[in-house]
Amino acid sequence: MSRHLRSIDDPRRARAALSRLIEPGDLTGAALVQVLGPVGALQLVAEEGARVPASVQQNVADLLGAAAASRRELHVAGGIERWRPRLGDAVPERDLATVERLGGGILTPEDAAWPEQLDALGPGAPLCLWWRGREAVATGLGRGAGRLVSFVGSRDATEYGIRATHELVAPLVGRGLVVVSGGAYGIDAAAHRAALSAQHPEGGPATIAVMAGGVDRFYPAGNEELIRSVAAQGIVLAEVPPGSSPTRWRFLLRNRLIAALCRATVVVEARWRSGALTTARRAAEIGREVGAVPGSIFSANSAGCHRLLGEGSAVAVTRSADVLELAGLLDGTSGGGQAARSGDRAPDPGPARRHDGLDVQDLLLYEALPARGVTTPDKLCSVAGLGVGAVLGGLSRLRARGLAVEAAGGWRRTA
Amino acid sequence: MSRHLRSIDDPRRARAALSRLIEPGDLTGAALVQVLGPVGALQLVAEEGARVPASVQQNVADLLGAAAASRRELHVAGGIERWRPRLGDAVPERDLATVERLGGGILTPEDAAWPEQLDALGPGAPLCLWWRGREAVATGLGRGAGRLVSFVGSRDATEYGIRATHELVAPLVGRGLVVVSGGAYGIDAAAHRAALSAQHPEGGPATIAVMAGGVDRFYPAGNEELIRSVAAQGIVLAEVPPGSSPTRWRFLLRNRLIAALCRATVVVEARWRSGALTTARRAAEIGREVGAVPGSIFSANSAGCHRLLGEGSAVAVTRSADVLELAGLLDGTSGGGQAARSGDRAPDPGPARRHDGLDVQDLLLYEALPARGVTTPDKLCSVAGLGVGAVLGGLSRLRARGLAVEAAGGWRRTA
Repeated sequence: MSRHLRSIDDPRRARAALSRLIEPGDLTGAALVQVLGPVGALQLVAEEGARVPASVQQNVADLLGAAAASRRELHVAGGIERWRPRLGDAVPERDLATVERLGGGILTPEDAAWPEQLDALGPGAPLCLWWRGREAVATGLGRGAGRLVSFVGSRDATEYGIRATHELVAPLVGRGLVVVSGGAYGIDAAAHRAALSAQHPEGGPATIAVMAGGVDRFYPAGNEELIRSVAAQGIVLAEVPPGSSPTRWRFLLRNRLIAALCRATVVVEARWRSGALTTARRAAEIGREVGAVPGSIFSANSAGCHRLLGEGSAVAVTRSADVLELAGLLDGTSGGGQAARSGDRAPDPGPARRHDGLDVQDLLLYEALPARGVTTPDKLCSVAGLGVGAVLGGLSRLRARGLAVEAAGGWRRTA
Repeated sequence: MSRHLRSIDDPRRARAALSRLIEPGDLTGAALVQVLGPVGALQLVAEEGARVPASVQQNVADLLGAAAASRRELHVAGGIERWRPRLGDAVPERDLATVERLGGGILTPEDAAWPEQLDALGPGAPLCLWWRGREAVATGLGRGAGRLVSFVGSRDATEYGIRATHELVAPLVGRGLVVVSGGAYGIDAAAHRAALSAQHPEGGPATIAVMAGGVDRFYPAGNEELIRSVAAQGIVLAEVPPGSSPTRWRFLLRNRLIAALCRATVVVEARWRSGALTTARRAAEIGREVGAVPGSIFSANSAGCHRLLGEGSAVAVTRSADVLELAGLLDGTSGGGQAARSGDRAPDPGPARRHDGLDVQDLLLYEALPARGVTTPDKLCSVAGLGVGAVLGGLSRLRARGLAVEAAGGWRRTA
């Protein structure tokens, strides 16, 4: 087995094997792959009792530097000790055959179609991506990066959150955006459903589900049908190979992929403490746009969104146009920045008021006119606080606009 | 009459007279008063056929400069033409007697108690303030400026807005803040009511109503009882003399007083187009803190608040602590700025989770432990992706925390 792994000379297959050995977010592994390349890294890990060359250890340490959370992460030998116990499970040919049988494949940095927006994660970038679904969607992840927007939020979403998700997502899909989420209950499911039911210009791709476990695991079970539809119209993605189970750890790490893949991330509902907030913060850290949907101050499911808005780390999103602006796709905006914050589009300007457009003096005069009975220009001078000239000129302007009428030797407003 | 006015040599009485002649926000009048002083300005206006000295016209023009909205505003003779028709109504002794009979008086820049925060309005500052109610509140407007917070919003408020106002205001009054509003229906009334019913440390002042008309007019009629209570526990304020009617123009101008008097302004509910937004913008322009209460994206009465949040011209306010931060009164904050935006206080941290505080490796190990049945350290190495040392050490740490138990020759999570 180890001998076989050591014989692998194809970097893509080597990454497939390494993604079985190395947990997502294991910076030591990612760094080792950068230093030795996937083939060399796999050979070192697979070699019984291999000693880590000092130069390799040094390069890994230099590479990680500040990125490392602990000194332990800098230690290659410690990493190898973590990874070797899984050597027995690493059979890349089997995993690749499995994912192909499922109607998918893998993407690696060696591929032209690799979504380079993931490089924003630095050493935290995934070793490879396992996908299933429509190949065009998988190979378009990089090219179409500008159209990827994620919707995330509470699993125990409220009716308000579900409805808001649908109202926001549907028009976006109509504009050719691709909705990315995590396939979970609540907001995630609402986002996928809204995307699937919306009309997409090219008939899809409508949506992408990034999973914490393998793409053969439709998790959670209650969403199996939904995720199956996602795979049919779009794709299901994972950085762990088929058969991998969705541990809480992998859920936490999965969020960074959603953040990095998309141009913008929208949190629809989130409690004060919520995984969706980590996705949003991660997105902000790597320079992605972040939106949050406001809600009732009495709803615990909006507390997290209000927290993001309060911190200034998210922009208020109240309609799909806000999301287009965030993603820089609204005609005449460059996306994000003040553009996304400008409130320059009234949904409902309200009925024009009769006095709209009057200048200050004419407004004062209009205010001074009685609705019933009549009054004289002299009295109007006093009531409105205007000179005779202003009053006489104003009365004729108001009459011209149909706002004032002369009657019974005086003036009044028109009914 | 004019002769009498020309004989007035008391600046306070002169301002009382000028506030009858000159509309709020009439910059020409304000500038003339600055140039000639209230006594001199009144003498010029009251003098039949007076010619405006070139030097005076020049000084007024220089003073207004960019502040003037139109060239007409720079023209003193034009102003005098506006003001003279009201000379017959200007009887300051009568107005002062009236306001005293109502249990009030006036405040002018000549008074030590003049609220100097109004100077932020520049030439737009009021000529004087007419008040009725508790003298200590009126004379404390300047000293207590740091504790004045205004709550404004829609007249046609929703149940949500009313409830939010009460929940936000009550604790603030308990902290000694003074709630300022406009005495209107809806959010204004809710703010005054919440303040009146809340427990104030020194037994009041609980609230201040700034009126568009004279302080003898309890407008709107439906709020007469309420505004009477405001006058009893706090004060009712106006820049126009008793008997003046509340025109739409004066409502617009009144908003600037609310903005300038207070350290912070909170918009609870507002439509996309709403007077409350002008108050908020005015407040922001003169460097006051502005907050907006988020709400349902489906509520037209929250659209204005979301507009402010979207523009970045307001901070999200979801609890009274946010208002204290805005006003710089929350211990350990300097108010406003990032302080007001930091979300560093969890209302409900949620139940601590069993695995909180585990380091990454122990979390991976905990995730790998079966809930039912048992497994061996070897299997755990492979499942968790950890070395033997990490697994054995981790198992004892988890056992110590009561998270793992050894049983039947293996390990599992504790129930």
